[in-house]
Amino acid sequence: MALLETLEWRYATKKYDSTKKVDQNDVDKIIEAARMAPSSSGLQPFRVVLITDQQLKEQIVPVAWGQQIIAESSHLLVFAAWDKYTDERIDATFDHMNNHRGLPLDTTDEYKNRLKEMFAALTEEQQAAHAAKQAYISFGMAIAQAAELKVDATPMEGFSNGELDKLLGLDKRGLKSVVLLPLGYRLGEEDWLLKLKKFRLPKDEFLIQLP
Amino acid sequence: MALLETLEWRYATKKYDSTKKVDQNDVDKIIEAARMAPSSSGLQPFRVVLITDQQLKEQIVPVAWGQQIIAESSHLLVFAAWDKYTDERIDATFDHMNNHRGLPLDTTDEYKNRLKEMFAALTEEQQAAHAAKQAYISFGMAIAQAAELKVDATPMEGFSNGELDKLLGLDKRGLKSVVLLPLGYRLGEEDWLLKLKKFRLPKDEFLIQLP
Repeated sequence: MALLETLEWRYATKKYDSTKKVDQNDVDKIIEAARMAPSSSGLQPFRVVLITDQQLKEQIVPVAWGQQIIAESSHLLVFAAWDKYTDERIDATFDHMNNHRGLPLDTTDEYKNRLKEMFAALTEEQQAAHAAKQAYISFGMAIAQAAELKVDATPMEGFSNGELDKLLGLDKRGLKSVVLLPLGYRLGEEDWLLKLKKFRLPKDEFLIQLP
Repeated sequence: MALLETLEWRYATKKYDSTKKVDQNDVDKIIEAARMAPSSSGLQPFRVVLITDQQLKEQIVPVAWGQQIIAESSHLLVFAAWDKYTDERIDATFDHMNNHRGLPLDTTDEYKNRLKEMFAALTEEQQAAHAAKQAYISFGMAIAQAAELKVDATPMEGFSNGELDKLLGLDKRGLKSVVLLPLGYRLGEEDWLLKLKKFRLPKDEFLIQLP
């Protein structure tokens, strides 16, 4: 199915059929799309956390404003971004990249040092926001991949990030949760949102043509 | 082509064939994918600016750290997010949505008022960062759509946002440029990046399985 058709088909599912599980093969593809997303300077300053354990999903519900869809979903993906950019993290990624490409580790030093200076000039909050934005590109790819596979998903920002970080031990890994993506299959007849017409800004308001 | 194949095919093109123009029909589809992207509460707090004028593209080069790919590209998309969330902007979007769905305008008041309170509790910088993150989901969809059509694209954060906002008059529209996407066709034999092996973090580093 073409991307535009998948984007038309998908919606932010509000009610899952908790008896249906997403096939591991499909979950793998969704994670793979997230992994293949582009990111600023190729740093991929975020990780995807996969949760299938029912008990853990239920523990997350109160941290996510009581939203039961997390417990009812088949799988939960948590997108978590670096809490800051450090020289060590940047070095490790570039070393990895150069090794993969069979290049000397110092090939990218000039570029890498400029990057380090750029990030060092930002506050930690700005660094975390920059990393989070990269995670959102990946998040978009995961949403598109799920829809292509006819797997339903719910983009969710409504949760207490700090509490979730503690619950999952993300803080100890230098990560901050930024967005959630429950996966599963819609219980269409019980989903109020599916009954409403999809809304997007009309093109003439969304698009600005210059000059 | 399946999304995973398109993500494998694409790369951040560094050299465009400036003699080749992207068909308007393809540009329309790329903008449509951006428009159909999900966003927090459906607010779509961003716009896409389309630039084809050669002179304007050339004026943007110095604002984008001298990167010639902007001038060499066929079309340039600028993703620009709301500089802040205001009650007026939130009301206008919900009114639009309710009208589209044939619902009374007050249907969503309770939800909408909670949203307004939530945004009012954030600093303007945090509000702009929140809006920018939504634009990044849309940006990802545009990248995926371009690749599906075998149109090359270059995700670009390297430019002076404030200067670009003034040059394009985005500040007067209450928008802040967040990311650029030149479109065109690769000049493969002259592109250094195409010669290098694609790198992504291995899955076992990218994915965290809990518990």
